[in-house]
Amino acid sequence: MASIFGEKIKISIFGESHSGGIGVTVDGLPAGTRIDMVKLLEFLEMRAPGRTELQTERREEDIPTFISGLKDGVTCGTPLTAIINNMDFKRSDYNVISDMPRPGHVDYAAHVKYKGYEDYSGGGHSSGRLTAPLCIAGGICKQMLSTLEISIEAKIIEIGGCASDFDKVIAEAKEEGDSVGGIVECRISGVPAGIGEPIFDGIENAIARTMFGIPAVKGIEFGAGFGASRMRGSDMNDEFYYDEDGRVKTRTNNCGGILGGISSGMDIVFRVAIKPTPSIAKEQNTISYSKKKNTKIKIEGRHDLCIVPRAVPCVEAAAAIVIADFMADKF
Amino acid sequence: MASIFGEKIKISIFGESHSGGIGVTVDGLPAGTRIDMVKLLEFLEMRAPGRTELQTERREEDIPTFISGLKDGVTCGTPLTAIINNMDFKRSDYNVISDMPRPGHVDYAAHVKYKGYEDYSGGGHSSGRLTAPLCIAGGICKQMLSTLEISIEAKIIEIGGCASDFDKVIAEAKEEGDSVGGIVECRISGVPAGIGEPIFDGIENAIARTMFGIPAVKGIEFGAGFGASRMRGSDMNDEFYYDEDGRVKTRTNNCGGILGGISSGMDIVFRVAIKPTPSIAKEQNTISYSKKKNTKIKIEGRHDLCIVPRAVPCVEAAAAIVIADFMADKF
Amino acid sequence: MASIFGEKIKISIFGESHSGGIGVTVDGLPAGTRIDMVKLLEFLEMRAPGRTELQTERREEDIPTFISGLKDGVTCGTPLTAIINNMDFKRSDYNVISDMPRPGHVDYAAHVKYKGYEDYSGGGHSSGRLTAPLCIAGGICKQMLSTLEISIEAKIIEIGGCASDFDKVIAEAKEEGDSVGGIVECRISGVPAGIGEPIFDGIENAIARTMFGIPAVKGIEFGAGFGASRMRGSDMNDEFYYDEDGRVKTRTNNCGGILGGISSGMDIVFRVAIKPTPSIAKEQNTISYSKKKNTKIKIEGRHDLCIVPRAVPCVEAAAAIVIADFMADKF
Amino acid sequence: MASIFGEKIKISIFGESHSGGIGVTVDGLPAGTRIDMVKLLEFLEMRAPGRTELQTERREEDIPTFISGLKDGVTCGTPLTAIINNMDFKRSDYNVISDMPRPGHVDYAAHVKYKGYEDYSGGGHSSGRLTAPLCIAGGICKQMLSTLEISIEAKIIEIGGCASDFDKVIAEAKEEGDSVGGIVECRISGVPAGIGEPIFDGIENAIARTMFGIPAVKGIEFGAGFGASRMRGSDMNDEFYYDEDGRVKTRTNNCGGILGGISSGMDIVFRVAIKPTPSIAKEQNTISYSKKKNTKIKIEGRHDLCIVPRAVPCVEAAAAIVIADFMADKF
Repeated sequence: MASIFGEKIKISIFGESHSGGIGVTVDGLPAGTRIDMVKLLEFLEMRAPGRTELQTERREEDIPTFISGLKDGVTCGTPLTAIINNMDFKRSDYNVISDMPRPGHVDYAAHVKYKGYEDYSGGGHSSGRLTAPLCIAGGICKQMLSTLEISIEAKIIEIGGCASDFDKVIAEAKEEGDSVGGIVECRISGVPAGIGEPIFDGIENAIARTMFGIPAVKGIEFGAGFGASRMRGSDMNDEFYYDEDGRVKTRTNNCGGILGGISSGMDIVFRVAIKPTPSIAKEQNTISYSKKKNTKIKIEGRHDLCIVPRAVPCVEAAAAIVIADFMADKF
Repeated sequence: MASIFGEKIKISIFGESHSGGIGVTVDGLPAGTRIDMVKLLEFLEMRAPGRTELQTERREEDIPTFISGLKDGVTCGTPLTAIINNMDFKRSDYNVISDMPRPGHVDYAAHVKYKGYEDYSGGGHSSGRLTAPLCIAGGICKQMLSTLEISIEAKIIEIGGCASDFDKVIAEAKEEGDSVGGIVECRISGVPAGIGEPIFDGIENAIARTMFGIPAVKGIEFGAGFGASRMRGSDMNDEFYYDEDGRVKTRTNNCGGILGGISSGMDIVFRVAIKPTPSIAKEQNTISYSKKKNTKIKIEGRHDLCIVPRAVPCVEAAAAIVIADFMADKF
Repeated sequence: MASIFGEKIKISIFGESHSGGIGVTVDGLPAGTRIDMVKLLEFLEMRAPGRTELQTERREEDIPTFISGLKDGVTCGTPLTAIINNMDFKRSDYNVISDMPRPGHVDYAAHVKYKGYEDYSGGGHSSGRLTAPLCIAGGICKQMLSTLEISIEAKIIEIGGCASDFDKVIAEAKEEGDSVGGIVECRISGVPAGIGEPIFDGIENAIARTMFGIPAVKGIEFGAGFGASRMRGSDMNDEFYYDEDGRVKTRTNNCGGILGGISSGMDIVFRVAIKPTPSIAKEQNTISYSKKKNTKIKIEGRHDLCIVPRAVPCVEAAAAIVIADFMADKF
Repeated sequence: MASIFGEKIKISIFGESHSGGIGVTVDGLPAGTRIDMVKLLEFLEMRAPGRTELQTERREEDIPTFISGLKDGVTCGTPLTAIINNMDFKRSDYNVISDMPRPGHVDYAAHVKYKGYEDYSGGGHSSGRLTAPLCIAGGICKQMLSTLEISIEAKIIEIGGCASDFDKVIAEAKEEGDSVGGIVECRISGVPAGIGEPIFDGIENAIARTMFGIPAVKGIEFGAGFGASRMRGSDMNDEFYYDEDGRVKTRTNNCGGILGGISSGMDIVFRVAIKPTPSIAKEQNTISYSKKKNTKIKIEGRHDLCIVPRAVPCVEAAAAIVIADFMADKF
């Protein structure tokens, strides 16, 4: 299908960037789980735009309304649906892209797929804005996982190829009317050994699948990742030992906590590569559908020139829905 | 679940390395498709072990028997099942691992997951041997895709960090009783623009999911991939133009043929990182379940010290089942 | 899962009888389909309560808001979500049932399943009110099917065991503070031969599955149905012939248009048995959870004493989502 | 899809009546479950043909080979696959039906669906023979359920409209070269209250779906079923009470153990209507595809004239896979 993920806890995302609203249905949550709304809103705030000067200047009030599945802040066991109304946008900013696809955006691919009926405005259903419902679902899953002593923490490890001075790198790009990408690393602690399924439904498979649901992700690697392809087996293999408490551990964690798709009990560690924001101030070459000829486009509107900071909670959210689905029987 | 992939063409893989047999059921193939058996066996031969001196010396006769869904070489439209009988293996080679997990292998994770009831011998259901049924399904899908002028070609671009002299690199590792990994690049040509679904079911999501079904894969990147995270937006964005025949093209293909999960009409290009074979001749540290203490293991048996060459058809197969599933309505 | 149906067109229903709202997401609709809103509202009106004196006196304004997937009345190809806000109800009517399950209702089963966290008010997620989103999805599917010349028509054939004088039968029951059920027959015309899948995914399997999603349905039969079990094979078998236009037909249609799960090209005909409304004015025996002893309950509130008329559009809707899913490739 | 059922325990059936073999893959069984092979073969024997004089005279040796997922009679936790080789059949018996569809059989519908490429011989994938793999899967599930004190018992309650003297009714039909159907009732005991999901995934929905996977089933009803449509609410409602042990019970069980799709803790009771065997000795009207004109067919071959006795274990098997799937977390 498309916008649905999960076997036991199903996440179904809907909405377009500029439609009446966006939202998510989470089906399969256990009954009786209290959701900490303050914590959830804080989590959502992390991905909200307009927080710093270097991010987009739009200001969205992404406060979700829970219209079902929740009574007095506690899950009922039935499908939980949260809606965010869309308000603050200027449709006029986007009229041009109905005829001219923005390079690096979904516009052209969506135009062909939806035969011209796509809601192109603001990127439609493929907009980064749709990570808000992802973060609602993921934020809830994160809270549930914390009751099982499972934590999920993502952080930026590179922006524009630099491992530090992130603000400086972003500021430089801004000056040039350009944009930058980066790398986010995520660590999941507390998943017991033996979780995950072989072949197509291992933890790697599922995390990789959801990560590519975050716009701009172009790569993912677990543990030593691409570096593993350059190691010798004797260096790569994580040797087992019993620690003083009789628990099975490995001294290294090159496999990123996953063996054959199944958790080893060590931290699950992965990195995702995020491309630079495609919306840049510079003029770019593109085409005009109506004139059927080559032309140039200059993207107005208000855009992040580096979405990596806002991607951090999205990575956590996308990981959380995967782990919650695998752990569903344990709640 | 686990060993099932696909929405319209469902691939279900079964068998353990040393069980009575291994096989695959492909449900959803259109009726009336002739399968070229010679071509399929040639494709399977690419992943079979024992072909070169540097690969494992085992010799498996991986000839599948088609027990359903196929009449006179033509699909009936009903579930197609192919079986490969398991014959040539020495169970005694593996007795030790029932008590001592091999570093880098699924053994320990499976031991916990299956509570000691796993068929550990030869890696069980997580064995690389299970890529044989994957290649049967993938080989059939590849043939079907070729009728739509879609080709899938994978090749080795690195072994042990080197972009050439692959045999020399492997030979060096062998001398040291060690193993090496590498990188395989895959190019899918002919997929029209507009294929794929947003958010969780884009082409990237599905390909990433199936690639991590190939044992030893630790990373995947599309187009510029991790390199994209270090580029400026103005370099990364693929600008559109009409070619002389009025077709929409991009001059660069940094997005790897996919925008927002949906095909752009350009070649789909991705790379997978393959770790070094975990089975090495060197002695390694591990644990003994029965003695509950640390110990050492020396893996006997016959093993590839570089599985990258054999991974090439597996990558093609795993890509083929994804694209065939997306294109199912077109057959 | 629970509230999700469909392979190619996925229907996901959410909401509780008395939560903030109820609604439905339809994922997989083709882009570019105009929805006739007047027609859709007329269809929804058929199941709305409060239309006749003999039905419930509640008056709900079940006007859906389409918050995504629809632009200027035309589908975008992305998930379509419609919401109905819940307004007119009196929660106080239902306080009693948090402690005392109503006989014939889901109350007790839900109480155990959801461990006391269920939104019991008005039947929660299992309420007949949730047939409103079903009818939204089904009404849209019906419109789409009509473009393929497929019609779906349901009608009452029995109420309280009588094949006519329905109003009189209902009136009699009302006088006695009791309720009645009935039988609805549905005829689907225009489905070409060859639609449906064998074994678990035939047309019968799927229609039966969705029909039991309508509260109060206790049985379903296709064609001659239970009567078939009392016929001889020579009477039951529908003999084939070519009609004057060279089309394959059968003179009888005892199989109800389905052979081995697959359509025969004849009308698909089935009947569903609907039990009497469980909410009756008479006092009934039940239990008190809190007192852990037997007690009596008298259900106040406003309720239909015969929901069969309102079930008619629900049966059509539930059939429409099935047939639309099977025909999805044809749109 | 088609031949796959289940969320947590997935059953995938393959094979044609006269292909190389038929079989089933069961994915999701817990590791460490011992399967009692003697008991399983006894169960399979119940559906095997050729046991009594009045049944088909064919003699199939339906002994399954377990090629994966089972080690020393104990499940490994990986996909379990069982194969039955096809041997004893005469393809020549079926040549005629490649051109002339048998009334009441899937032949014509399959011919259209599979565009003439169907394996028509013996009914192909839609053959009653495919209930053998269903019974393998169901027999295993039944054994697993018995460890949870859940039993499933089906029995014939009517043949040819008669509630007794079944052999006499069948013998009469045989004399006339005709066939008869009947009704099978199934009772599932021991399912705790609170199992099942609302709307589309209740117990009724799932059982109805699998029952229509048994060839010749034309109707299903739960509890009072169609009779419920003729009852008053005050008679139909099952009133709750605490029994002497403090357990919640109902005095009647008109709802058949299911309220709103969810188990009530009472026995689950349902009946399925089975049509008379379509293969009869009498000459019947049909068409010839090749001559494109009306003709007559006389079905030779060896056939059951009443499959109701053989349907009994199939009903149990189809119920068992449903309940096992719902109870999967409890094993």
